[in-house]
Amino acid sequence: MKIKVVTRIMEANDRIAAENKKFFNEAGVYVINLMSAPGAGKTSLIERTIKEYQGKLRVGVIEGDIAGTEDAQRIGGLGIPVIQINTGGACHLDANMINEAIVGLYLKDLDLLIIENVGNLVCPAEFKVGEDMKVMLLSVTEGDDKPLKYPLMFQESSALVLNKIDLLPYTNVDIGKIKKNSLSLNPTLKIFEVSCKTGEGIGEWAEWLQSLVR
Amino acid sequence: MKIKVVTRIMEANDRIAAENKKFFNEAGVYVINLMSAPGAGKTSLIERTIKEYQGKLRVGVIEGDIAGTEDAQRIGGLGIPVIQINTGGACHLDANMINEAIVGLYLKDLDLLIIENVGNLVCPAEFKVGEDMKVMLLSVTEGDDKPLKYPLMFQESSALVLNKIDLLPYTNVDIGKIKKNSLSLNPTLKIFEVSCKTGEGIGEWAEWLQSLVR
Repeated sequence: MKIKVVTRIMEANDRIAAENKKFFNEAGVYVINLMSAPGAGKTSLIERTIKEYQGKLRVGVIEGDIAGTEDAQRIGGLGIPVIQINTGGACHLDANMINEAIVGLYLKDLDLLIIENVGNLVCPAEFKVGEDMKVMLLSVTEGDDKPLKYPLMFQESSALVLNKIDLLPYTNVDIGKIKKNSLSLNPTLKIFEVSCKTGEGIGEWAEWLQSLVR
Repeated sequence: MKIKVVTRIMEANDRIAAENKKFFNEAGVYVINLMSAPGAGKTSLIERTIKEYQGKLRVGVIEGDIAGTEDAQRIGGLGIPVIQINTGGACHLDANMINEAIVGLYLKDLDLLIIENVGNLVCPAEFKVGEDMKVMLLSVTEGDDKPLKYPLMFQESSALVLNKIDLLPYTNVDIGKIKKNSLSLNPTLKIFEVSCKTGEGIGEWAEWLQSLVR
């Protein structure tokens, strides 16, 4: 009985996600669903990426959080169209939340829409929101055991951005182990190493993402 | 209709949690539910805490993970009774999982049972498992904006352990802001600063926890 309810919820979500995707395609905007644990640096990566694209791409952002508007204020400060979603307790964004949020964005004015999901390595991976691609961010300070402990997110993502590499010398983390185990779960995963603090590696990531935007 | 289903699930969970708690009380074991984001250092804190209690307290551990047995192997290596729960996708432990796991532990031989929840700052805070106290671990590398973005966990916890303080000098994180905002959500929250890498602050935390164990 419980499974039936869950199945129905997932089917309804997938249907709305497909509608969102059609809507995004028609507007000519490429959409990424950015997921990570809390505090891995999603908003910092978005800030860095936006700066790389100044004068090149028109970017919009949807911020997903349980509560608060701190992230939207950070992004809005860069002069970028931004919508804040507060899930009010829910641990992930779903397609319906995005469907309601996009009425606040003029999509035809955008080339790239970045959806920042709720900080959570589990449930966001299960819910499509209408994205072209899922991107996962992992801070190296979270440890090298994450891929095998949270496999679904590594399997569902097209790209893995490893952040905070400036802190690597002060930890015991084996970045080679992260990469090896991530690729064992998802052999086509594209992996980037960056520091949103120093800017290292941001150029390579931004260039790759730009190559996907139509 | 959806809310009804959720309410029924929560009621069933609370009922089983109360049974677990009665069972723990009768066995004379104090139980903590340890929660954090992925990679904050829950297993490292447990390792450090166990070492502090050698010859003082008899400790058992239940490890909750989506997948894998790496944490249970780490704890088992210390000669401590340990049970691994694999939730198979679920993003939190619930009372029923604990109810099933404890048949594998001889509780009368324990003074303290540490339940390591799935790494997630959201859902674990909603599900009682039969614990005497919830403890939250936050790595300072996750940033100083976490309390206002994930308020429920800070409100539900009796203690907040701030880990990885050895990395503070290499970040822009304001630990004063973390403490101030945590206390604004939960004025009675007991806060500890530790480094599971260097051992700093572990003694104070372990002494306080031991004072609660009957």
